[in-house]
Amino acid sequence: MIHTLEWTDSGVRFIDQTKLPTEETYVTCKTYEQVADAIRNMVVRGAPAIGVAAAMGIALGVKTSKADSGAELKLEFDRMCDAMAKTRPTAVNLFWAIRRMQDKFEYLRTRPIVQTKQALVEEAQRMHAEDIAANQAMGRHGATLMPAQGGVLTHCNAGALATCGYGTALGVIRAAVEQGKRIHVYADETRPFLQGSRLTAWELMKDGIPTTVISDNMAGAMMKQGKIGVIVVGADRIAANGDVANKIGTYTVAVLAKENGIPFYVAAPFSTIDLETADGSKIPIEQRNPREVTHIAGKAMAPEGVQVENPAFDVTPAKYVAAIITERGITRAPYEDSLRKLAEATATVSR
Amino acid sequence: MIHTLEWTDSGVRFIDQTKLPTEETYVTCKTYEQVADAIRNMVVRGAPAIGVAAAMGIALGVKTSKADSGAELKLEFDRMCDAMAKTRPTAVNLFWAIRRMQDKFEYLRTRPIVQTKQALVEEAQRMHAEDIAANQAMGRHGATLMPAQGGVLTHCNAGALATCGYGTALGVIRAAVEQGKRIHVYADETRPFLQGSRLTAWELMKDGIPTTVISDNMAGAMMKQGKIGVIVVGADRIAANGDVANKIGTYTVAVLAKENGIPFYVAAPFSTIDLETADGSKIPIEQRNPREVTHIAGKAMAPEGVQVENPAFDVTPAKYVAAIITERGITRAPYEDSLRKLAEATATVSR
Repeated sequence: MIHTLEWTDSGVRFIDQTKLPTEETYVTCKTYEQVADAIRNMVVRGAPAIGVAAAMGIALGVKTSKADSGAELKLEFDRMCDAMAKTRPTAVNLFWAIRRMQDKFEYLRTRPIVQTKQALVEEAQRMHAEDIAANQAMGRHGATLMPAQGGVLTHCNAGALATCGYGTALGVIRAAVEQGKRIHVYADETRPFLQGSRLTAWELMKDGIPTTVISDNMAGAMMKQGKIGVIVVGADRIAANGDVANKIGTYTVAVLAKENGIPFYVAAPFSTIDLETADGSKIPIEQRNPREVTHIAGKAMAPEGVQVENPAFDVTPAKYVAAIITERGITRAPYEDSLRKLAEATATVSR
Repeated sequence: MIHTLEWTDSGVRFIDQTKLPTEETYVTCKTYEQVADAIRNMVVRGAPAIGVAAAMGIALGVKTSKADSGAELKLEFDRMCDAMAKTRPTAVNLFWAIRRMQDKFEYLRTRPIVQTKQALVEEAQRMHAEDIAANQAMGRHGATLMPAQGGVLTHCNAGALATCGYGTALGVIRAAVEQGKRIHVYADETRPFLQGSRLTAWELMKDGIPTTVISDNMAGAMMKQGKIGVIVVGADRIAANGDVANKIGTYTVAVLAKENGIPFYVAAPFSTIDLETADGSKIPIEQRNPREVTHIAGKAMAPEGVQVENPAFDVTPAKYVAAIITERGITRAPYEDSLRKLAEATATVSR
């Protein structure tokens, strides 16, 4: 069992993902500002994990608040939500989680502060549990799309480490393996942060799932050689038309999949679907520090002063996506209809 | 002026490409075995540079030989050629260069040993000069295909550092810039060896050509955003049907180019064209040490014991190649005809 993030009596505890796979260390954030820093610095990353981390950060801030009136607590709460919202712009789960905490806070407005604190802590813990349950449901649905045997390529880390446990894309793979499917995972190393080689390989090896690490630019050759039967990745935001923002390089994988006749699947909780964003062109793409590209393990890998681009995400147009796997089921094109119907059909159903 | 490899009185001198861009150091090989090691360990790399390095290594071995009969020298010579042939399997320029030295040796067979030694040293030096001249001719032809302004993407390093000077793909870019074209180069970092960020960016910055380094998996996003007008890469071997073996990841770039309607050009000397190999499936692809993928700057970036693939090259089918630029001119599909005609038409022309 991997404990990506946990609520503890002394604060929010994270496995430090910047240190894996060579060091398995944990950090406990004792203030909401520390949680915001952990998100910004990718101690915790992955859209679903970021969402729950933000909720827990807000719960932590509220719990430790010295405010002695509802109005004062509201001021502090707004500041906490703002701080979380500014950490990373692309993963919509972050904003979904903040909104959910805001709704809860609003609902509790007239209660005594002590009750509000308790209820927000419980809400964050509920989101943690729901996330794992959603991943397991996603796994059950998605496993039907996995081959009985053979290579499955994934990009970045959409695993237990990107969520509260089990994973989205890796949850689908785990569920398929649990059903007896003989899957060999090809993990793109995923430059510049190397989530694939550092994180995906680490968590799959823990589970004994056969894994081969490749440089990102080897994925095309593996597909062309027939080593990859299916591709499954996660998502940071899915627009209403089915365009998918995910880790930089996902678009490339999708184009290669199309060219080689390989189905390209996206697994993500419903909270990743952003029906208010019409298409991928409207999704804000985070640019990160050039140093992530120019330096590895502290060593310069490019001449000093060279220009760098470092977009953390790209957008894969819906036309490349064979299906989107959510905890509510599998949806297919045309996504404008199917995603809306999925939202409507389940809006009245309790999660 | 970049001195990638040079014949000197004390041996064959290389800029150590494993140390760039942080250290500009040179190593002088005093035996042919040391030259073979330099090729194997990628102190020198790039198909045209490897070819000339092998020729110089053989010349060095012959020059320093203690053999006192033609028969004995022949035995040693064969051993030198064998050693060179075993360094790296994919770049055909290596075998072309060895063959050229063998032909020369055969031609000189009845001469006194001292004359043979001198002639082989001169032959290797001639190949060095011819390589630079070929690159300059390639540049003149290829520059016509470059845009008047805008982004040009290249993969790996097909520059001065991959040749005896000026470069193939980067020679085309250099010639275009010399003609006043306003080109901004996007350099794929090119994992695992990082020839793009370490070498291409370094040599282009030396020449003041604007360069942006990107991770390999960002190239797709750059193309989709309209930042890339043209792509030009080198080659390690071009089969008779126009299939191109080049640095791993080239196939991916070509597929992305097709999907985005961007012309994909290959620049290579005629010695890279292997008419004896019918198509790309017959080109041997070197697998290198997994550690190149799992470790960067000596630090483990993947869990211990994970499986790894590390093919150094891939094959781009001819259908993706808009044109092949050689020192003899620009050729286009159908390559089976155009490459053969290029060979026939110029077979009688002195180089």
